[in-house]
Amino acid sequence: MSDVDTGLRNEEGIAAVIGVLRQRFGDQVQTGETLRAQHAHTTTYIAGQLPDAVIFPNSTDEIKTIVRACADHRVPVIPFGTGSSLEGHVNAPLGGISIDMARLDKVLEVNAEDLDCTVEPGVTREQLNTHLRDTGLFFPIDPGANASIGGMTATRASGTNAVRYGTMRENVMAVTAVTAAGEEIRTARRARKSSAGYDLTRLFVGSEGTLGVLTSVTLKLQGIPQAISGGVCPFPSVEAACNAVIMTIQMGIPVARIELLDALQMKACNAYSNLSNPESPSLFLEFHGTEAGVAEQASLFAEIAAECGGGEFLWTTNPERRTELWKARHNAYWASLQLRPGAKGLSTDVCVPISRLAECVVETQEDIAASGLIAPIVGHAGDGNFHVLVLIDTDIPAEVAAAEAFVGRLNTRALAMDGTCTGEHGIGQGKRRYLPLEMGEGVSVMRQIKQALDPMNIMNPGKIFSFND
Amino acid sequence: MSDVDTGLRNEEGIAAVIGVLRQRFGDQVQTGETLRAQHAHTTTYIAGQLPDAVIFPNSTDEIKTIVRACADHRVPVIPFGTGSSLEGHVNAPLGGISIDMARLDKVLEVNAEDLDCTVEPGVTREQLNTHLRDTGLFFPIDPGANASIGGMTATRASGTNAVRYGTMRENVMAVTAVTAAGEEIRTARRARKSSAGYDLTRLFVGSEGTLGVLTSVTLKLQGIPQAISGGVCPFPSVEAACNAVIMTIQMGIPVARIELLDALQMKACNAYSNLSNPESPSLFLEFHGTEAGVAEQASLFAEIAAECGGGEFLWTTNPERRTELWKARHNAYWASLQLRPGAKGLSTDVCVPISRLAECVVETQEDIAASGLIAPIVGHAGDGNFHVLVLIDTDIPAEVAAAEAFVGRLNTRALAMDGTCTGEHGIGQGKRRYLPLEMGEGVSVMRQIKQALDPMNIMNPGKIFSFND
Repeated sequence: MSDVDTGLRNEEGIAAVIGVLRQRFGDQVQTGETLRAQHAHTTTYIAGQLPDAVIFPNSTDEIKTIVRACADHRVPVIPFGTGSSLEGHVNAPLGGISIDMARLDKVLEVNAEDLDCTVEPGVTREQLNTHLRDTGLFFPIDPGANASIGGMTATRASGTNAVRYGTMRENVMAVTAVTAAGEEIRTARRARKSSAGYDLTRLFVGSEGTLGVLTSVTLKLQGIPQAISGGVCPFPSVEAACNAVIMTIQMGIPVARIELLDALQMKACNAYSNLSNPESPSLFLEFHGTEAGVAEQASLFAEIAAECGGGEFLWTTNPERRTELWKARHNAYWASLQLRPGAKGLSTDVCVPISRLAECVVETQEDIAASGLIAPIVGHAGDGNFHVLVLIDTDIPAEVAAAEAFVGRLNTRALAMDGTCTGEHGIGQGKRRYLPLEMGEGVSVMRQIKQALDPMNIMNPGKIFSFND
Repeated sequence: MSDVDTGLRNEEGIAAVIGVLRQRFGDQVQTGETLRAQHAHTTTYIAGQLPDAVIFPNSTDEIKTIVRACADHRVPVIPFGTGSSLEGHVNAPLGGISIDMARLDKVLEVNAEDLDCTVEPGVTREQLNTHLRDTGLFFPIDPGANASIGGMTATRASGTNAVRYGTMRENVMAVTAVTAAGEEIRTARRARKSSAGYDLTRLFVGSEGTLGVLTSVTLKLQGIPQAISGGVCPFPSVEAACNAVIMTIQMGIPVARIELLDALQMKACNAYSNLSNPESPSLFLEFHGTEAGVAEQASLFAEIAAECGGGEFLWTTNPERRTELWKARHNAYWASLQLRPGAKGLSTDVCVPISRLAECVVETQEDIAASGLIAPIVGHAGDGNFHVLVLIDTDIPAEVAAAEAFVGRLNTRALAMDGTCTGEHGIGQGKRRYLPLEMGEGVSVMRQIKQALDPMNIMNPGKIFSFND
């Protein structure tokens, strides 16, 4: 990265705090290099930056004790869920203490009548849905990885069904968090809505660990739909597919998922899963509702697709057949990697108003071709959000440079279309340089808040904001 | 109110700033007492506190100039929309300059394909919907009054259809605002979702003018539903009605409105509108969707109502007949006032998890009876939010005291049920004392943010936070 981290390691403080924590927590504190390296693992090409120790707390009180010790010695605190974030969020550029939430994995309460639950931050989304299995409820947000709820909250995650159910922004009702001063706060009660003061919940959602350590998250839940229908439809062009998306949204069809795969991605999927889908831009759809409702929704979409020049819309309410139709989408990531075996996938995302989605995707495809990169595109089209997986050999500096330059142009393009440099991955380290381009003076306001709540900059330093701006 | 405002008026600064503004803005600055009194008007029994001048800016640049002048002289700035807020939000306890947004009434852009629009803060919701009439789109949030979009944003307003479409929290995509330093910021782009940094949009939504002056608001819009069905159903008790609400939400029926009127309110409505509805707790419902969908939703609700012991559910898709069925709900406010002609209505609201709604309403009815008050209840039941309109003679101190004591118990009751002291009215001056009870240490975090962004406390001082805590 060209964002040089010029912050200084506080060697003395780090040594002191490890001593204090060891004395208090014994072998809950680990300093072995392998474990530390796992906690600096990122799924990007951003180099790992190891924390000096990893600690496994068992309770909020223990987190308070850890944060207070780190505050006393001005040592960085890096919260860690499952490490599936994509922009270097768990790196420790100045070292410090990684707080691994693995033991904080309890579902604290489920209020079925209120359609909500409260979980510890280390609970993963799959674990939560397993826990909910007998309640008739589910937690819809699905970013792909089996991420922790704490991590999903911290990065404002979303995924395929955000078009229907919203992102973590809409689905987190409250959090408890330990602030930089070592105090626990609760950001809201369990009421569905409130006009009581500043929206601290939304401030913590997406704050990437820079304002405090999450200790519990209260989530909205959804009733499992009575029926689900799903299908796939090819289109002659990205524009035609995007027009169908726009009409679907405008008509108010409450589509649960509407995913765009470009021609290269479809080709990769056919090869990987031995399928024979048309190798043209395609939409994968899912509808949730009553039996009659999901059939009606699918029929309405079929009309729209035909009007937009789409090919045959294959759809079904049969679960096995639906899984079959969605197979290409389900395996898209692994299929992509096989386009260039041995390469590393650099996953990046942007999000634009849906009226600009086709233009943004097409220009990006042209850019990919002109750059000589291999990079299939998958989009959460209903939100105007899409991912590019750039397949590079990270040992070849020219490839890394080409990929970086491409990401820069992609972000500039999205911003020029009134979009954002990240729809769901977050800023972390990887997108810090684009945030000021997107937010202008707004970044100063963010910095003022950060400074007010974490004056010593011990909370996940070097994320969202660079040290040297 | 027993929250004494011990902040001091800055007489010298106020005189100076009025001089500066007069010189720059001429008769856009008004100091007549009648006009100033109108700008301190509140719809509660909270006494008016007049600003020293009212100014009518024509542009964002003019707002910047005004705020900078006020900052230079440390003079309070009070943004004013239509004055329909309910908790003293537009009062000027330390005097200062009321900025009336009446001339900032332009719809700046409508992006029909993206289902969004951007408006100046003085645009009212009815004006916006009139403007949208030919687009097939509408803006759903309806707090009752024809409030300004700026004011609705500042108070995090909602209303009857929040259960389907969310509150201002979910429907504001971005704002521009002039900060206390006189800089304009934009909190987000037009992408449907973003993970880029702190959620400044949500921080400004509900900040009640205490962090800056809104200069534009970007809103989500909805497609006008193809069909609407609506109806009314009586229940033998509040519990039975609330059980029907819970089952409706749990089943995922996408009800657009589900309003609870208690027996006293139904009685008032019958008398006022010459109706013959059963005088028992009743639910008023509305469903939005396709022709087939709204019929299906109404049928499903009819089954639920029967299961919960409800009486006949009268419903229709005919617009005139629907208006007829909803007449009681539409006229509820005016009907209430006729329960005690000449009395003033003190409107207060709380919101609890819906599993506690019946208990909270019933205890509140018992409290009303024990207090000798006349106070019908109307609830946005799908959100667990309800209003009590306490009818008092504000010239009788004992009545005011009884009403205040009742409001105190109502808030304590809602908080004990993990609810909030205000679902949609905001804190303003009227609910400041309850915010610390609800938020605990969270209020300190709010204060730190306020202090960081408005160190001189010139932005609508005395709202959300008391001077003397």
